[in-house]
Amino acid sequence: MEFPELNVRLPEWLPKLFQGPERVYPSIEERMGLVIELARLNVEKEKAGPFAAAVFEMRTGKLVAPGVNLVLQLNCAILHAEMVAIAMAQKILGTYDLGGPAMPAHEIVINTEPCAMCLGAIPWSGVRRLVCGARDEDARIIGFDEGNKPFDWALSLKNRGIYVVQDMLREEAISVLEEYQSAGGIIYNSRRGSPPAGT
Amino acid sequence: MEFPELNVRLPEWLPKLFQGPERVYPSIEERMGLVIELARLNVEKEKAGPFAAAVFEMRTGKLVAPGVNLVLQLNCAILHAEMVAIAMAQKILGTYDLGGPAMPAHEIVINTEPCAMCLGAIPWSGVRRLVCGARDEDARIIGFDEGNKPFDWALSLKNRGIYVVQDMLREEAISVLEEYQSAGGIIYNSRRGSPPAGT
Repeated sequence: MEFPELNVRLPEWLPKLFQGPERVYPSIEERMGLVIELARLNVEKEKAGPFAAAVFEMRTGKLVAPGVNLVLQLNCAILHAEMVAIAMAQKILGTYDLGGPAMPAHEIVINTEPCAMCLGAIPWSGVRRLVCGARDEDARIIGFDEGNKPFDWALSLKNRGIYVVQDMLREEAISVLEEYQSAGGIIYNSRRGSPPAGT
Repeated sequence: MEFPELNVRLPEWLPKLFQGPERVYPSIEERMGLVIELARLNVEKEKAGPFAAAVFEMRTGKLVAPGVNLVLQLNCAILHAEMVAIAMAQKILGTYDLGGPAMPAHEIVINTEPCAMCLGAIPWSGVRRLVCGARDEDARIIGFDEGNKPFDWALSLKNRGIYVVQDMLREEAISVLEEYQSAGGIIYNSRRGSPPAGT
């Protein structure tokens, strides 16, 4: 038997947004503004999931790596935006722990609170802060399944030393979700684990 | 700015284990036996995480895709064995939903119960059954962090139509974890989210 290689790359239009060798976003609002714009572009240019994320150096706001949801483009259920941004940042920095010794603190900024999978990935990534736009329920209301998360998920991160900021530009973040729904975007993974109808 | 491509491939020794165009493992014990052996080989040949997984057609036992933990080899925190096996199976079958219409039912077999991230990924994958070897606490006892899972995680999968089989060849599965610990294997992601000592 032979097994393929999985090649995960960002869409072509994405790196073109970032001129020069580095980009810095001093305020949290600017960081979230970028992430919301990436989510919007992922819908507009790819007709893909309305989710984006980015890893920044927490103090300076230097962008380390962006990510967008690639589930539909790459036929891969695990490639949520957070997973792509984490994996990309770790590839760039050459470490599986963004919180390792002698490294600046890192954070992940996402346009919608994490699903159960991405929530579970956050402590493994080594980030020190999670900044969220839309709430979990804002994604559920348009039909996305966020999975079974511990009810005190934000506290569980805090107890691990990962600070959580919620509702950052929430209304703007919601508008991208609503545009996706209005445009008839595919709500993938919406079976909630049950068999397809008719089987 | 430019961003790299992430290339996820199985270790070279792995495909060589599977002669011929396809391999079938009729019983659940045989499926788990394979997965435990892959975990053992990942330690022996790669000095890497003692975890493996495989996606099978549930009824026939036809192997679709194996996976091993690649965190240390690829410096990527999200590449747990389950994630690799799911992504590989979806790439091979060309779909982000292994439970889609007109497909045979699929299952994932893993040598240790899933961490919070992989648990969250399972409903998104489309598998219909999860077969586990060692328990969550067997991994914790050697120092691995399994994350914050809902206390009724197996029930939460069952409620989504994903059947959970526990303790399949548990003692054999534990022996691989113990060997890893005895050999001084790296317990990665063991900071539990807190800052490294001394910072």
